[in-house]
Amino acid sequence: MGLYVQKYGGSSVADAECMRRVARRIRDTQAAGNQVVVVVSAMGDTTDDLIALAKQVNPEPNEREMDSLMATGEMASSAILTMALHALGVKAISMTGHQAGIRVDGTHLKAKIQAIDPKRIHRHLDQGCVVVVAGFQGTNPRQDIATLGRGGSDTTAVALAAALKADRCQILKDVDGVFTANPRVVPGAHKLDAITYDEMLELASCGAEVLQSRAVEFAKNYGVVLEVVSSFEVKPGTLVQEEVEEMEKMIIRGIAADKNQAKATLLGVPDTPGVAARVFKALAAAHINVDMIVQNVSAAGITDLSFTVPKDEIVQTRRAIEPLVKAVRATGLNFDEDIAKVSLVGVGMKSHSGVAYKMFDVLAAHKVNIEMISTSEIKISVAIRSRDADRAVRALHTAFGMDAKKRAPAARRGAKKAPAKKAARKGK
Amino acid sequence: MGLYVQKYGGSSVADAECMRRVARRIRDTQAAGNQVVVVVSAMGDTTDDLIALAKQVNPEPNEREMDSLMATGEMASSAILTMALHALGVKAISMTGHQAGIRVDGTHLKAKIQAIDPKRIHRHLDQGCVVVVAGFQGTNPRQDIATLGRGGSDTTAVALAAALKADRCQILKDVDGVFTANPRVVPGAHKLDAITYDEMLELASCGAEVLQSRAVEFAKNYGVVLEVVSSFEVKPGTLVQEEVEEMEKMIIRGIAADKNQAKATLLGVPDTPGVAARVFKALAAAHINVDMIVQNVSAAGITDLSFTVPKDEIVQTRRAIEPLVKAVRATGLNFDEDIAKVSLVGVGMKSHSGVAYKMFDVLAAHKVNIEMISTSEIKISVAIRSRDADRAVRALHTAFGMDAKKRAPAARRGAKKAPAKKAARKGK
Repeated sequence: MGLYVQKYGGSSVADAECMRRVARRIRDTQAAGNQVVVVVSAMGDTTDDLIALAKQVNPEPNEREMDSLMATGEMASSAILTMALHALGVKAISMTGHQAGIRVDGTHLKAKIQAIDPKRIHRHLDQGCVVVVAGFQGTNPRQDIATLGRGGSDTTAVALAAALKADRCQILKDVDGVFTANPRVVPGAHKLDAITYDEMLELASCGAEVLQSRAVEFAKNYGVVLEVVSSFEVKPGTLVQEEVEEMEKMIIRGIAADKNQAKATLLGVPDTPGVAARVFKALAAAHINVDMIVQNVSAAGITDLSFTVPKDEIVQTRRAIEPLVKAVRATGLNFDEDIAKVSLVGVGMKSHSGVAYKMFDVLAAHKVNIEMISTSEIKISVAIRSRDADRAVRALHTAFGMDAKKRAPAARRGAKKAPAKKAARKGK
Repeated sequence: MGLYVQKYGGSSVADAECMRRVARRIRDTQAAGNQVVVVVSAMGDTTDDLIALAKQVNPEPNEREMDSLMATGEMASSAILTMALHALGVKAISMTGHQAGIRVDGTHLKAKIQAIDPKRIHRHLDQGCVVVVAGFQGTNPRQDIATLGRGGSDTTAVALAAALKADRCQILKDVDGVFTANPRVVPGAHKLDAITYDEMLELASCGAEVLQSRAVEFAKNYGVVLEVVSSFEVKPGTLVQEEVEEMEKMIIRGIAADKNQAKATLLGVPDTPGVAARVFKALAAAHINVDMIVQNVSAAGITDLSFTVPKDEIVQTRRAIEPLVKAVRATGLNFDEDIAKVSLVGVGMKSHSGVAYKMFDVLAAHKVNIEMISTSEIKISVAIRSRDADRAVRALHTAFGMDAKKRAPAARRGAKKAPAKKAARKGK
């Protein structure tokens, strides 16, 4: 009993059959005595198709126009899902981001939600309607449509849950929840019953694709209880919440591997003050997300400055840094795309020493060379060769005692293998 | 020099290549010293595809949701066309119906424009932008999206032209203008240089698909000079305007055939007062467009009441009328989809008698049976068997002296046969 916000992603609503399945799930949630607000992404590959079409008429499409274009995908799917609910006899109404009262700032393609006026949603909820909101979008102060960036529908859902004071915000996925590691890589990976906001944030920023960081941040700031659940079956997923006593004690909650990073190296930089500042100022101005940074000064007063950036920002990075190469008297700039970032995440690290040492030891024992290291209070990341990533993740998962103890033989986790997974979780 | 509103239909913007072509046309119009507001339809078959998708999840989709869904087609195409203009270096901005200030009434699927607040459009025009407006849509008093019905983008264009006090509203088509008859059916059909609003209205309501009736009505009411022109070539099209002295004298301006009508017949109705009123009140309440009506009382005081409705409104008509069959003590209700309505239209009829007689005589000579007749001051329509329609139109076109006198041998008019058509028009 309560007010639920449920978010369904693009693959959950890819076609008419998927729409009908999602509609039944929503009907059941409402029939259990809940009010339901649904946030929906564009159907299947719609967003990619729209982007491809845009690029056909203009290789560098204007950002405002891209936003107007892409937002139509979510508008259409919210209307279709509403029709599917009607077909089941469920009272429902669709809303665009604008109609749902979602106000965003003026940054196109990466807008931030600034306020939500939930009056209209409340009015329809009070009339017994399911309200189906187009995700990923809002209206900016110029009355233009702006989108929240890839995965932005998660943020829409969390922001609505906060504004509506919802009891829970469920993100429905084609996986059963958040896993200790990618189950396609690590056979012993198992679903977590709960994870803290901070752990989820670190995992999200380390390549776990289950939730968008911004959505988790929003949930943390507004105390929204987030649940990642399967869209296929009704069963408990993973709760994302503040750390509580009842949580399972684990030093490491999860291991993530990110193969979408590249290492940029500014070669032969004289070790004079202010070089790093100039480089990272230029990167910040170009809105490039730098992650790990390494600089070691050699005896000769010459150093290499390395940092990682998302692979799809290499072009922008080069554009931002190249003018500086001469200015800082460096000898060159190169990019290495063949790296992977492997990260251990867990609030337990705060009270356990020796996690870093153990990690390095395990990797050494498996002959995995570490190229860069960065740490936070609850995370250790290393950059290694891309080809070593899967092996490293499996070795670490086992070494930190995270493998499910009892599990069906060769039970590799897929979206539909619920019984095997349940056994694995209980066995833990 | 002036302010032009140009409307491009779905087939003109069907793909990226079409978009680029349309963008060049718009650029040239602006480069000639004009301000340009563009109204654009959904790309190609987008609207039909969206409707088909909706029907997959719900055979009778809710009208509000259909409007929200369909409107996305025009939103997307306005953004894409704007990007194509940018690619040519043209300053341009897209607007949804809402952003363009188009306010409509609350009737979904057939909304009427009630007001336009053109402030934002003017602001961008003053900045040297081409403004590309998503056709076919507006916002109603409930802040919902409502569409104007099939062909509604024509109405958007005319209404914008009126609100902006534009110098001309051009409807760009894949034909050269308004023809005396469908050139695919009548080889001697030729393009008209001008036609009166009233004639165009009658032709549009009689099945000529060149313009939406509502758009013409709007143009007439607000004195908007409308021009139907080719989207392929820059050359004069057909002006739709008030009757003026200089117009070519023709008794019949055009002949239209409409095969999208069905004949509904309420059988064995007792001839008592109020029956027709009850029937047509029910149809009006269901927003069904009844066109021709025939009732003949037999000696026995029993009659059949027949009327025509659009074929795609048969289901709604049956639903509206069936409950009345017993109530008015009729013996049944049937539908005949195998009819066509053929109409002669011309303001010249006002001052020429004998047009009806001549029409019936020509049809009789060609053994075409007339089932229903209706007339207005400038129109005569007959319902005949569907299979006779093309033959009837050709015979009437010849009999009323409308065939182009000189034309290239076997020059059937296609969109690209401009020289042949020009010769035909001059020879007339």
